[in-house]
Amino acid sequence: MVESVAFGLTKEYRDRFQQALDKRDDAFILKNLEGVNAADITALLYEFNSQESKYVLDLLDVEIRAEIITELDRDTRIAFFKIYQPDELIKIIDHLDSDDAADILNELPIKIREEVLAGLDKVLRMQVIDLLRYDENVAGGLMAKELVTAHVNWTVVQCIEEIRKQVENVSKFYAVYVVDDYNKLLGRVHLQQLILTDSKTLVKDIYDPELISVQTHLEDTEVASMMRKYDLESVPVVNVYGQLVGRITIDDVVDVITEQAEEERQLMSGISEDVEEDDSIWRLTRARLPWLLIGIIGGLISVQFIGLFAIDLMRITAIAFFIPLIQATGGNVGIQSSSIVVQSLANPGFVEEGLWKRLIKVFLVALLNGFLLSLIVLAANMLLGGDNNRLFIVVSLALFTVVLVASLIGTITPLILNKFGFNPALASGPFITTTNDLLGLGIYFLTIHFFL
Amino acid sequence: MVESVAFGLTKEYRDRFQQALDKRDDAFILKNLEGVNAADITALLYEFNSQESKYVLDLLDVEIRAEIITELDRDTRIAFFKIYQPDELIKIIDHLDSDDAADILNELPIKIREEVLAGLDKVLRMQVIDLLRYDENVAGGLMAKELVTAHVNWTVVQCIEEIRKQVENVSKFYAVYVVDDYNKLLGRVHLQQLILTDSKTLVKDIYDPELISVQTHLEDTEVASMMRKYDLESVPVVNVYGQLVGRITIDDVVDVITEQAEEERQLMSGISEDVEEDDSIWRLTRARLPWLLIGIIGGLISVQFIGLFAIDLMRITAIAFFIPLIQATGGNVGIQSSSIVVQSLANPGFVEEGLWKRLIKVFLVALLNGFLLSLIVLAANMLLGGDNNRLFIVVSLALFTVVLVASLIGTITPLILNKFGFNPALASGPFITTTNDLLGLGIYFLTIHFFL
Repeated sequence: MVESVAFGLTKEYRDRFQQALDKRDDAFILKNLEGVNAADITALLYEFNSQESKYVLDLLDVEIRAEIITELDRDTRIAFFKIYQPDELIKIIDHLDSDDAADILNELPIKIREEVLAGLDKVLRMQVIDLLRYDENVAGGLMAKELVTAHVNWTVVQCIEEIRKQVENVSKFYAVYVVDDYNKLLGRVHLQQLILTDSKTLVKDIYDPELISVQTHLEDTEVASMMRKYDLESVPVVNVYGQLVGRITIDDVVDVITEQAEEERQLMSGISEDVEEDDSIWRLTRARLPWLLIGIIGGLISVQFIGLFAIDLMRITAIAFFIPLIQATGGNVGIQSSSIVVQSLANPGFVEEGLWKRLIKVFLVALLNGFLLSLIVLAANMLLGGDNNRLFIVVSLALFTVVLVASLIGTITPLILNKFGFNPALASGPFITTTNDLLGLGIYFLTIHFFL
Repeated sequence: MVESVAFGLTKEYRDRFQQALDKRDDAFILKNLEGVNAADITALLYEFNSQESKYVLDLLDVEIRAEIITELDRDTRIAFFKIYQPDELIKIIDHLDSDDAADILNELPIKIREEVLAGLDKVLRMQVIDLLRYDENVAGGLMAKELVTAHVNWTVVQCIEEIRKQVENVSKFYAVYVVDDYNKLLGRVHLQQLILTDSKTLVKDIYDPELISVQTHLEDTEVASMMRKYDLESVPVVNVYGQLVGRITIDDVVDVITEQAEEERQLMSGISEDVEEDDSIWRLTRARLPWLLIGIIGGLISVQFIGLFAIDLMRITAIAFFIPLIQATGGNVGIQSSSIVVQSLANPGFVEEGLWKRLIKVFLVALLNGFLLSLIVLAANMLLGGDNNRLFIVVSLALFTVVLVASLIGTITPLILNKFGFNPALASGPFITTTNDLLGLGIYFLTIHFFL
């Protein structure tokens, strides 16, 4: 039977399931979860508390239990595992791939981690200990140890024998990696080649030596952009000696890409923690306050700053009318500029243009934008505002300057952040926006002060 | 030999290559590009003009030429193909997978498209004609026709024979799809099963019927989130009758996810076209102006609006000092709120909470944020601003109200946009920010007017 549609989760279904849980109606639970994909069961379990979820999990096969555990998001899993005993954890983790097992062990309190590690299956334990050495943001932290290798002098039939041995451990594999006596990676053999070649053929005669591999210390975002660029479904990981130590599959990289996009959105919108709509009110507040406070501090500085020009304001009240116009334009121009830079930093591959060439171009675009916008504002003011041409010309002059300055700041900031190892998307966040706001205000009031 | 590092592109190398191109030094060009990955050659060719790039391509094998063509971004390809004759296009497109061929044909002017289509290899032509029927944003537009199918009554040896026939056409395959007499999809057989099973075994005894498939009309973003959720490396596409019509591989979906993230960034930063830093000045300006104009219009409305309160401003100049504070906070709160909603819309899977429950929670978070922020601002004002307590209380009151209103607008807008089929990330863009700015200003001046 083909499962054409994803398992739908309705409120009614959840309530019905909750009833079954309350009554400990194991038959109902098992019947309803039979044949359901682990990812769907996970989504369902998010609706219940830890005790209830554990009750359901304990009814299921340990393989499915293990799969569900890997589907959980990190925070939920950390909370959830608090009600588990070490021996229960060992049973589950023994059924995981080495990369997932290492991730989960990293989340456990150190005492429990040691206890669980000691109880794991010996092969898995050695693999996990090896993986725990790597930072989670590099290739070594992304890779799994499960892979099928063949010695370059083997025959096809020996290869197939090796696959037969490994088939239980390696859930997804696309190729057999070919190594020499020292486990140095030489190339790979595609599965379809094994099917199509005579069984006495030697691996050395059919393997493909043109293989892209990554070193353990390569950053995860670079692994992602490399796999994307070369359309790879999996990539072998080698150490500095070129020895094969693991492999990364595309599904891990899809997660990296998605997390990167989410992190960027959070930076751009000024949220300082990884929160979701269903987090607690306190957590949501805490994630939002820091950046709001930066905005508030910027605002308080504005108060002091405008205060310096109180005399000008008393003289010509209309000065105040244009504050929002100047600020909003400065902010928008700054965000647009930094966004374009962030995008080109995310898609490298062209020869880097020199910084000056880049800035001159940004300057020209800003000149054109600034000129058009100031002209439009001047015309609109003259049409709507009556007889105050001197003020209007000064406003347009200030607006023009703000567009130029905001463009340059918006362009330079992400470049500087990137150079010092920060995420350039920070430049589109509240900190830079606040700086831009203040600069815009400064330019406006100084222009007014000197020209009016 | 293992290619451990990506091919590096330096300015010196580009200049050396340019020299070779100027001198038509074919030997140098060929020697330097031998064994280089198509994606790397593509990156290099971006450095030269169309004529030069075509000169290089014509030196290369048609297979590599075809690969390079698929690597190009859409706009570059459209421009590049203008210097090609239809018969040259036919030669290249004949070497593409059906999905890439259909994408490229879609980019050609209609007259040339017909000419090229007529000249294509017959099998490919039929496949492409079928694919051209689908919108590019649905599963049908993402899928390729190249796949290996086996009849459920076949033996393993017949399967392998079929793979042998198809191996030239299908570049990446992970599984054999099993169908019945009517081409209805029944399940699949993994490659490793074919390797491990006796060749006389029947397909019906080894195929896996638990298979997730998608229908042709499913949206590309939904295909992406489904493949991500279920960790699929490829997914078969069926029509409404359940007949197998194509398959989508994970690399296409990685592109969808990346494009989605880029589109969202553009929406959030108010860029209306898909531009890059190296586009022309005019194109960059055109992409930025529309949203900047919306900001300008908002600013001009502010001018008129504040003008209504000129009397209040003349009476108490200090009112103007707080305009940036109020506006920036309103803007930041709005963007944060919509960003959280956009995130939960992008990661569905939980039971939808009712709208009211959602809004009440947002309201509580806003209440807490607003209360804390107003208190901080009140304290800061009293410390720094001297003796104007009445004004300060009114400012904090307005700030509190602005936080509440901006939270609600920031939450509701993406939900409404999503409901009507727009991208909810629009809510974090300039249009909504401008609306929020105006509302903030309105609340502030009305509060001032009535309480001061």
